[in-house]
Amino acid sequence: MSQGEFDIIKRYFQRSTNKVDGVEIGIGDDCAILDVPCDHQLAVTTDSLVSGVHFFEDVDAYRLGYKSLAVNLSDLAAMGATAKWVSLAITLPKIDEVWLAEFCRGFFALADKYNVKLIGGDTTKGPLSITVSAKGLVKTGQALTRCNAKIGDVIFVSGCLGDGALGLLVKLLATETELFTKDNQQAFVNALELTEPRLHLAKLLVGYASSCIDISDGLSQDLSHILNKSQCSAEITLENLPFSDAILNEIKLDHLSLSQVWQHAVNGGDDYELLFTIPADKVSAFKALLNTQSKYDDLACYEIGKITKQKQIECEKLTTASAVSSILFTYLQQPVDVNSTGWDHFK
Amino acid sequence: MSQGEFDIIKRYFQRSTNKVDGVEIGIGDDCAILDVPCDHQLAVTTDSLVSGVHFFEDVDAYRLGYKSLAVNLSDLAAMGATAKWVSLAITLPKIDEVWLAEFCRGFFALADKYNVKLIGGDTTKGPLSITVSAKGLVKTGQALTRCNAKIGDVIFVSGCLGDGALGLLVKLLATETELFTKDNQQAFVNALELTEPRLHLAKLLVGYASSCIDISDGLSQDLSHILNKSQCSAEITLENLPFSDAILNEIKLDHLSLSQVWQHAVNGGDDYELLFTIPADKVSAFKALLNTQSKYDDLACYEIGKITKQKQIECEKLTTASAVSSILFTYLQQPVDVNSTGWDHFK
Repeated sequence: MSQGEFDIIKRYFQRSTNKVDGVEIGIGDDCAILDVPCDHQLAVTTDSLVSGVHFFEDVDAYRLGYKSLAVNLSDLAAMGATAKWVSLAITLPKIDEVWLAEFCRGFFALADKYNVKLIGGDTTKGPLSITVSAKGLVKTGQALTRCNAKIGDVIFVSGCLGDGALGLLVKLLATETELFTKDNQQAFVNALELTEPRLHLAKLLVGYASSCIDISDGLSQDLSHILNKSQCSAEITLENLPFSDAILNEIKLDHLSLSQVWQHAVNGGDDYELLFTIPADKVSAFKALLNTQSKYDDLACYEIGKITKQKQIECEKLTTASAVSSILFTYLQQPVDVNSTGWDHFK
Repeated sequence: MSQGEFDIIKRYFQRSTNKVDGVEIGIGDDCAILDVPCDHQLAVTTDSLVSGVHFFEDVDAYRLGYKSLAVNLSDLAAMGATAKWVSLAITLPKIDEVWLAEFCRGFFALADKYNVKLIGGDTTKGPLSITVSAKGLVKTGQALTRCNAKIGDVIFVSGCLGDGALGLLVKLLATETELFTKDNQQAFVNALELTEPRLHLAKLLVGYASSCIDISDGLSQDLSHILNKSQCSAEITLENLPFSDAILNEIKLDHLSLSQVWQHAVNGGDDYELLFTIPADKVSAFKALLNTQSKYDDLACYEIGKITKQKQIECEKLTTASAVSSILFTYLQQPVDVNSTGWDHFK
């Protein structure tokens, strides 16, 4: 059915958002106009999802709508920000009303959960892709960055690791073979497609965490960003990595070895959990704070290692020592070589 | 040459923007962190340019970089905002270093001109497309919207009309025929590809204009947005439409009829000029203000009509009258039928 661009916007995307939640003007003018409170700073993130690259062409529209927002909200969480507003640029090959309705149902299911308002965007024709730009608020000076981890800080991760990467594996091989039990396969795919942005946890991290990042490209690669920015190294205790019931069950069934699980957990990406550091002297208070939060069931987080000193490497030609950031993985106190490469679009 | 995503960002897009111009944190963390002054509101706009839809696949990379920012800055100008920050999501089929360097040269040429800082984005692989989200500041309560035009207000347009649409025509037919003189063809294509966002003029409109919009979809369609939102009609005096020297020259050479020029000026789109209304009693003061501005040479604007009362249309079935917004085009005081359809992606 042929519909005009403005009809589409009106029918699917435009909701009455004016004059509430800091939205002075929402969809329907040249720009949105937003109110940022005086004692807050604006956090902005942008992520694109491209058909055939970030998702399969036959992806479920509800899940695509959900995930295109989720990956952006995860970035806001990683800064300790409260999610507020979002712009959606969607490029569609054609107007498929059922598809669009489902996409919006997924998008707004998540938006409504965290009270995020769609304030604008663009609807264009072309190969399917979605670019979301999310905006949040953080108290001035309190944003969680990647550059303040200190030696001795404890490294935490929210939720479980490896399920997203296993979900991708299931999707890639789906028609060819059954790697895992049906229930576990579905659990992995759900972890990949219905990722939960850790916005509730993020609020509690402000004032405690010395650094934070979300694990979109893999624990190893994303931890390296913190280490490089903070000029330190890390030791990760593999026996402390948190795994889902589905992964533990597959290990038990001998469908997965421990070494395979480490690979997915450390290098796989697509987990969208928060990786953060807390100074040793604040860990008890942080845990006590978590224990007082009965309102939310998505606050689980686990100690997986600690921040250590950079290694000194002798540079032969310069006959001087250079400091490098590195990650030492150990299992039962023995070093383990876990190949460290995350997801990179152009490699 | 194969380069990683992070290398590309570092090499082409990342500049040192931290701690200046309201950028607390720029590229290089999960989010940018921005300072919005207490007495200002944030203006946000997002526009996508898709290969084969918004630009030709062999488009000059410099011009594409320039235009992808220009169309967004034009939206900020339409709100009376000062441009401040921009996010760039770019999807590339492959890494072509020469192309990327040229794209960035065009993008930053315009960004630097208006002191706009690139604060983040996303670099992904896929069919070429660019989504820019621009952010600006406007004094609280002073944003220029589409909904405050009043009967008797004078309608103005900045710059000239029709050149963008003629530029598109030249590009579409380029290899087949020469419609116009070589110099004029180039002038039309320049108008299409190197559009100037009217940010200098926008600053002067605040406090004077009762409504404003940028003409991206054609004078007729964009004026209709103001009329519908403001619940009024308009009369446009065709002999007052401003035309470039190139168009006037082509009329003189008999390559274009006046009627053809009206078509392009009224329905063509791609002009990215500002269309705004000023209350009759403020017009003199506004013109006087313009005359004091010797710093900029891009402030030209022209009176092209006035805001009128909505038409009352008898609705047969309801036996009541309904008010509709309409545009009356006149030439030498005679009504002219100028077919009113702008650009719509899905029609």
